[in-house]
Amino acid sequence: MPHVYETNGAAIYKESFATIRSEANLARFNKDEESVVVRMIHALGFVGLEEHVRFSEGMAETARAALANGAPILCDVRMVSEGITRPRLPADNAIICTLKDPQVPELAAEMQNTRSAAAVELWRPHLDGALVAIGNAPTALFHLLNMLEDPDCPRPAAIIGCPVGFVGARESKDALMADLPVPSMIVEGRLGGSAITVAAVNALASWKE
Amino acid sequence: MPHVYETNGAAIYKESFATIRSEANLARFNKDEESVVVRMIHALGFVGLEEHVRFSEGMAETARAALANGAPILCDVRMVSEGITRPRLPADNAIICTLKDPQVPELAAEMQNTRSAAAVELWRPHLDGALVAIGNAPTALFHLLNMLEDPDCPRPAAIIGCPVGFVGARESKDALMADLPVPSMIVEGRLGGSAITVAAVNALASWKE
Repeated sequence: MPHVYETNGAAIYKESFATIRSEANLARFNKDEESVVVRMIHALGFVGLEEHVRFSEGMAETARAALANGAPILCDVRMVSEGITRPRLPADNAIICTLKDPQVPELAAEMQNTRSAAAVELWRPHLDGALVAIGNAPTALFHLLNMLEDPDCPRPAAIIGCPVGFVGARESKDALMADLPVPSMIVEGRLGGSAITVAAVNALASWKE
Repeated sequence: MPHVYETNGAAIYKESFATIRSEANLARFNKDEESVVVRMIHALGFVGLEEHVRFSEGMAETARAALANGAPILCDVRMVSEGITRPRLPADNAIICTLKDPQVPELAAEMQNTRSAAAVELWRPHLDGALVAIGNAPTALFHLLNMLEDPDCPRPAAIIGCPVGFVGARESKDALMADLPVPSMIVEGRLGGSAITVAAVNALASWKE
């Protein structure tokens, strides 16, 4: 017998978001933040993630306004850039991932750093007013923070800092919130990744659920 | 002062995998399975994931052999197909994602199902002997199971079933392990997603850590 299951995409979203709102502890988030956290929980399938999400004051509002005004979105990996839902973007925003740029391997060798960090170096011409979405590499976030110590480096509008893993992820995100070069959001600790990073961008791009 | 951090990619991997092996409870997995689970934990930044991973007997060995023999990899979303590390593939395997095929929207309307399920319908010419990697949509997995109820439908070599979320994810994965049309692996419950699905494919493709 064929399996019977919900086949209506809109109904699936509606029921999913209702379940999340009934189970997750969202009281400490304002409206702009709440819609981001709900979508991140949805992407990970994990109620409890909300305990680890931190926004600096006004980050969600700032990032929404930047996207509405046409900010480009700078992504550390193609899993992030490919996951962003184009029709949700309010201004046909550019989505930029420089990781596969042919200059990256040689630049990484010169910098004695990872390809992820070298790719961030190539963000400079696009960085002014951008939304940064880092969903994989702690070294990308650390290198961006070091670039932003130079007052002449262009400033992004806001940073989503969700690198994942066991070496440098926690430390790079703690450093972001301590430096706070621009309004920022993180998931504390080891948790992170492209799926929740994409979810945050998609939520900031549009209120549609 | 610039932040100081580990910038050597090989050292980061080595330390990450050592940390995972020191913390995670991996005793119940054989060698072929263990390397998959370790890489999945790495992708999610979450020790504890291992409690939810289930392999049918011989799945990891079967999937490795299929990839070595040139099996195509069928992915439900581009976040999976884009995340697979091409240089790890043993036979320059084809990576196929039909979600953006122009036939999909009309086919979904005809089927009264999601675009994800319609995209799986388009896998038929590639399905024989393939490795299936479902990292997002429960409806994709349910539709595949219904297709495979037809004995004339071509059989994949193995299925990675890691759809994520709050509606149908748990049910579709339980159905996969109950039907077991071919050797399969799942993450039980709501957890899933493209990152751990990609990690499983990358681990099955190569022993390199």
